[in-house]
Amino acid sequence: MNSELITVGTELLLGDIVNTNTVFLSKKLAELGINVYFQTAVGDNKERLKEVVSLGIKRSDLIILTGGLGPTEDDITKEAVSEVLNRKLILDNQVLEKIELFFKKCCTSMTHNNVKQALVPEDSKIIKNEIGTAPGIMVEDNGRIIIMLPGPPKELELMFNKYVYPLLRKKSKYIIKSKVIKTIGAGESFIETEIKDIIHEYENPTVATYAKSGQVEIRITAKAFNEYEADQLIKNVVNEVECRIGEYIYGYNDTSIEEVVFKLLKSNNLTIGFCESCTGGLITSRFTQVPGVSQVLDRGIVTYSNKSKIQELGVKEETLFSHGAVSSQTALEMAKGLKEKTGVNIALSVTGIAGPTGGTAEKPVGLVYIALATDTGVYSKKFNLTGSRNQIQWRTTNHAFNEIRKYLISLK
Amino acid sequence: MNSELITVGTELLLGDIVNTNTVFLSKKLAELGINVYFQTAVGDNKERLKEVVSLGIKRSDLIILTGGLGPTEDDITKEAVSEVLNRKLILDNQVLEKIELFFKKCCTSMTHNNVKQALVPEDSKIIKNEIGTAPGIMVEDNGRIIIMLPGPPKELELMFNKYVYPLLRKKSKYIIKSKVIKTIGAGESFIETEIKDIIHEYENPTVATYAKSGQVEIRITAKAFNEYEADQLIKNVVNEVECRIGEYIYGYNDTSIEEVVFKLLKSNNLTIGFCESCTGGLITSRFTQVPGVSQVLDRGIVTYSNKSKIQELGVKEETLFSHGAVSSQTALEMAKGLKEKTGVNIALSVTGIAGPTGGTAEKPVGLVYIALATDTGVYSKKFNLTGSRNQIQWRTTNHAFNEIRKYLISLK
Repeated sequence: MNSELITVGTELLLGDIVNTNTVFLSKKLAELGINVYFQTAVGDNKERLKEVVSLGIKRSDLIILTGGLGPTEDDITKEAVSEVLNRKLILDNQVLEKIELFFKKCCTSMTHNNVKQALVPEDSKIIKNEIGTAPGIMVEDNGRIIIMLPGPPKELELMFNKYVYPLLRKKSKYIIKSKVIKTIGAGESFIETEIKDIIHEYENPTVATYAKSGQVEIRITAKAFNEYEADQLIKNVVNEVECRIGEYIYGYNDTSIEEVVFKLLKSNNLTIGFCESCTGGLITSRFTQVPGVSQVLDRGIVTYSNKSKIQELGVKEETLFSHGAVSSQTALEMAKGLKEKTGVNIALSVTGIAGPTGGTAEKPVGLVYIALATDTGVYSKKFNLTGSRNQIQWRTTNHAFNEIRKYLISLK
Repeated sequence: MNSELITVGTELLLGDIVNTNTVFLSKKLAELGINVYFQTAVGDNKERLKEVVSLGIKRSDLIILTGGLGPTEDDITKEAVSEVLNRKLILDNQVLEKIELFFKKCCTSMTHNNVKQALVPEDSKIIKNEIGTAPGIMVEDNGRIIIMLPGPPKELELMFNKYVYPLLRKKSKYIIKSKVIKTIGAGESFIETEIKDIIHEYENPTVATYAKSGQVEIRITAKAFNEYEADQLIKNVVNEVECRIGEYIYGYNDTSIEEVVFKLLKSNNLTIGFCESCTGGLITSRFTQVPGVSQVLDRGIVTYSNKSKIQELGVKEETLFSHGAVSSQTALEMAKGLKEKTGVNIALSVTGIAGPTGGTAEKPVGLVYIALATDTGVYSKKFNLTGSRNQIQWRTTNHAFNEIRKYLISLK
């Protein structure tokens, strides 16, 4: 089945908003094995929208329109589609009742405009909107399916997942399923080289690498007649990839590295503390985005000045003087100092040069030391990272979490 | 002048990437007063691309295509456009030389494929690409302008700003200019109510409000024949808005609240330290994204556990016991403790409940206290914030920076 997406809204044409609905729908249709051949954005202009819809019903089996279903004069999606299909707009009493009920609950009065939202093309099906007033609509016309959904992403996504997805699933012959392998610690070109033959050898599932926020992801996508068959196809490749680059893999699909670290700490019943210089609190901040971290996190200290490194962590003035704030020695003293002071099981320190200024020939921008003081000892590691200030900070945090993960795994 | 944008790439149709090039180009064209009527994304398929280009040259004065200019078989933009316009592709020796030079510098060898990048439609102009191998191309055909630019955003944006923008500027009758007023501390509906008559009264410039990352922005957009005229139109409205809601305004256009705070601290020659609980380092992390903050930032401490609040900041056990960690008293002791310990001019503390769990009837999720200990005294403020964990954390940091800003302004 071939499809196209039409998004309606002048704000898109002005560049005021990013078209995330198209990304959402394209991903979902890919999962369903439905080809998307065109995505068109058009403004709140009936003639131009009619032009796009007319073209769509000539070339695509499925057309999904989003936006332009609101109560105002600007909202013209239903009107345009009805005119192209030569159908009348009729009042749907059930929809009207729901809209009236919605306004009663909100304690605001319903305006005459809202009645417009209960108009639907004749012979169409209603797609329920449980969190807004604009219903979705499905029309079948000469074997084509035309689906209209409201623009607000929350409404659209809920309605698509709950009502449209199962409906299209029935009409599609096969499914597409993906598994993402997430890695830290190796560059994209390294990973690609290690699994080059897998990437080229397989046609189903397909294997592709992506660099994302300083990490490398490997996506394995299978096309099959059912979920079980897809899982089997994926499993074989995942096993092979794990054999090659297992040491860099920290998780799968939506798992984040900070979640992995949190779970490992919790299951080992260990506490942690961070002391950061160049990352300026980003490690602690990323970690505290995971709900429940108070069970394992004691504290984080951002020792930005030399004075604070001495006062907070007991770094020796002599060390700072002879080796500099960005050195293995300072990183080690920071971690040791934090561990002694707080009694946490693991103290992680980071010191480096995030740039854009502050680099020298000897200590360039991107030089970073990460040290770990644990119940079994102390060590530090040197990294040479590239990118903008933000990228270096972000990549440093990835490496920091990965060092903790590797230590925790070694405990097993 | 009416235009349309065509983005080429199968990855867009799969929902693998967000179409940011379209956002960039739409904004720029809006600035130039050029209407964008259609945005179309199409895959790496020559027949479908030719269909879209053919339609484009029938209905638009200006067509900008992005993507599909690379060296591989998949890259078919030039081929499709040439076939539609009935022009030959010819080898451009100057472009070829540049590509050869580029590969010499990179120390990698040039493949036969790269020669393809030097093919251009006859009678076209080259748009220089200073950071990649794919040149941009401009063709004029029966009064229409067709511009092709490479897909990587960095290349596209540099080339558009440097070469395409000035060229289109000459062809457009008027310009569109915007100024954004940035506020913190009031909700969108409050701001909208305060300036409702301004929003409705003005047609040029137009005035609109946007809620963004817990802040509210007011965008004033003028259409004029030149920059001076646009500035005058904008200025009048800005003055009026400032009169109404001046206390919430912290900056304009691209300025961030953390930059404003950094500049105020620097010009007042003051140092600062942060102690955070529920924001988990996000205040310090956001602040250290501004280059140069080491001049004013002493340290940040994330006191997540009660023990760390006592040890690091001298919060009394009794205070924690009788008032709780999330209380005005604890916030005040945290700030005072940090100031005494570090000697900074300003110590800011934050304690609250970011959720999703941990709230009670008395102390619900979203309850946040922010305290400031300065050279002139100590005070705390209570906030009741809404949203997800991340949103509450983010909004708290906005309020924290705004409290510092207000204090620093009061020193004048």
